[in-house]
Amino acid sequence: MSGTLYGIGVGPGDPELVTLKALHLLRAAPVVAYPAPDDGPSVARSIVARWISPAQIEIAIRVPMLPAPAPAQAVYDEAAAGIAAHLDAGRDVAVLCQGDPFFYGSFIQLFARLAARHRTEVVPGVSSLAACAAAARLPLAVRDDVLTVIPAPLAEAELERRLADAEAAAIIKLGRHFEKVRRVLKRLGREAGAIYVERASLESQRVLPLAEVDGAAVPYFSMLLVRRPGPSS
Amino acid sequence: MSGTLYGIGVGPGDPELVTLKALHLLRAAPVVAYPAPDDGPSVARSIVARWISPAQIEIAIRVPMLPAPAPAQAVYDEAAAGIAAHLDAGRDVAVLCQGDPFFYGSFIQLFARLAARHRTEVVPGVSSLAACAAAARLPLAVRDDVLTVIPAPLAEAELERRLADAEAAAIIKLGRHFEKVRRVLKRLGREAGAIYVERASLESQRVLPLAEVDGAAVPYFSMLLVRRPGPSS
Repeated sequence: MSGTLYGIGVGPGDPELVTLKALHLLRAAPVVAYPAPDDGPSVARSIVARWISPAQIEIAIRVPMLPAPAPAQAVYDEAAAGIAAHLDAGRDVAVLCQGDPFFYGSFIQLFARLAARHRTEVVPGVSSLAACAAAARLPLAVRDDVLTVIPAPLAEAELERRLADAEAAAIIKLGRHFEKVRRVLKRLGREAGAIYVERASLESQRVLPLAEVDGAAVPYFSMLLVRRPGPSS
Repeated sequence: MSGTLYGIGVGPGDPELVTLKALHLLRAAPVVAYPAPDDGPSVARSIVARWISPAQIEIAIRVPMLPAPAPAQAVYDEAAAGIAAHLDAGRDVAVLCQGDPFFYGSFIQLFARLAARHRTEVVPGVSSLAACAAAARLPLAVRDDVLTVIPAPLAEAELERRLADAEAAAIIKLGRHFEKVRRVLKRLGREAGAIYVERASLESQRVLPLAEVDGAAVPYFSMLLVRRPGPSS
């Protein structure tokens, strides 16, 4: 009897934003895996650390810092093989995913490698998008708004084209791309309506107007929410 | 001492996808409000019905079926006044929102009327978007994909323009607009890659390839997920 792979969204950071389903599956799984930086603790693990028992087997998937796509592929190959061995031995594996597993999540890499051969269930979680909107007190989209999620690593011209056409937008993965995004928003005359959110739902959460952000200190996991000024909000 | 207004995302439908925070705040609130159809039960209430106590005051906000924007505004004016009276009397009010409150949620109407004068907190929830992707086993977006959320009520030409430019898209609020959307996807040659999801996370959940959907039986709360075929997934 083969085990089941669970991709479990544990939400944006506040342990209170974990779902009942995530909690129940996490506690029942003999094996718990999570992405972690080269050195240092895993954010996904830290969100649910209080519910992990010493009896559970833990697998830290050490993902090299971006940008490093080629080494990351080898890391996911190796992690998938390790997880497959537990599944083949009949042990369920819970993979912890910050936010939602299918919203730009690294779990997608494991899903692509394992879902065809192993029973797999994806447990949706509260996304960083929802958490940032709540923190900023800014509705993401209303009525018939088109909502566009735009990764900041895109080329500057493509960013500008996408943002010019977006009535409601979230610009994600800011990090070292922040000043590029700021330039684009200034050119489009939309700097005033942009709200910056960092570490949404955590105690260290920061919410700032774009103009007040120090571009040298922007982490990768941060977001700008932009709405077209007008009557629709 | 004035009460606090909580806009609480209760997730897409499965009570197991409620967060701990939603559960704790819901149980503690003396007043619970929720949208409901003209006649019949509230979906948001049904998700958390097991945790509502007879001691709690309940307010059903009877929202007329769409499309009817003008009467709906009067309904929200009246609901906001009723909620404000409880807040002024020092009672916290929990407004239940299916999915996430700020992702096309009707709570935005109450927030716009009440947040300036009353202490307000938005509690993000698992969105229908995350739940549909999990149900369809289709990642929403990976790496530097742009993800576009497109309401189906848009005009056909605008739908086509938006979809032609979308590498990953979710088309929401299908209902009676379904056949229009199907025509557009056919013209764009993207029918094959589209997955239809209805009542995600509930036992009655349905996941179908677009070609197998009966357009005459599509509810408003359903979604199509569309990905550009290619190596990026």
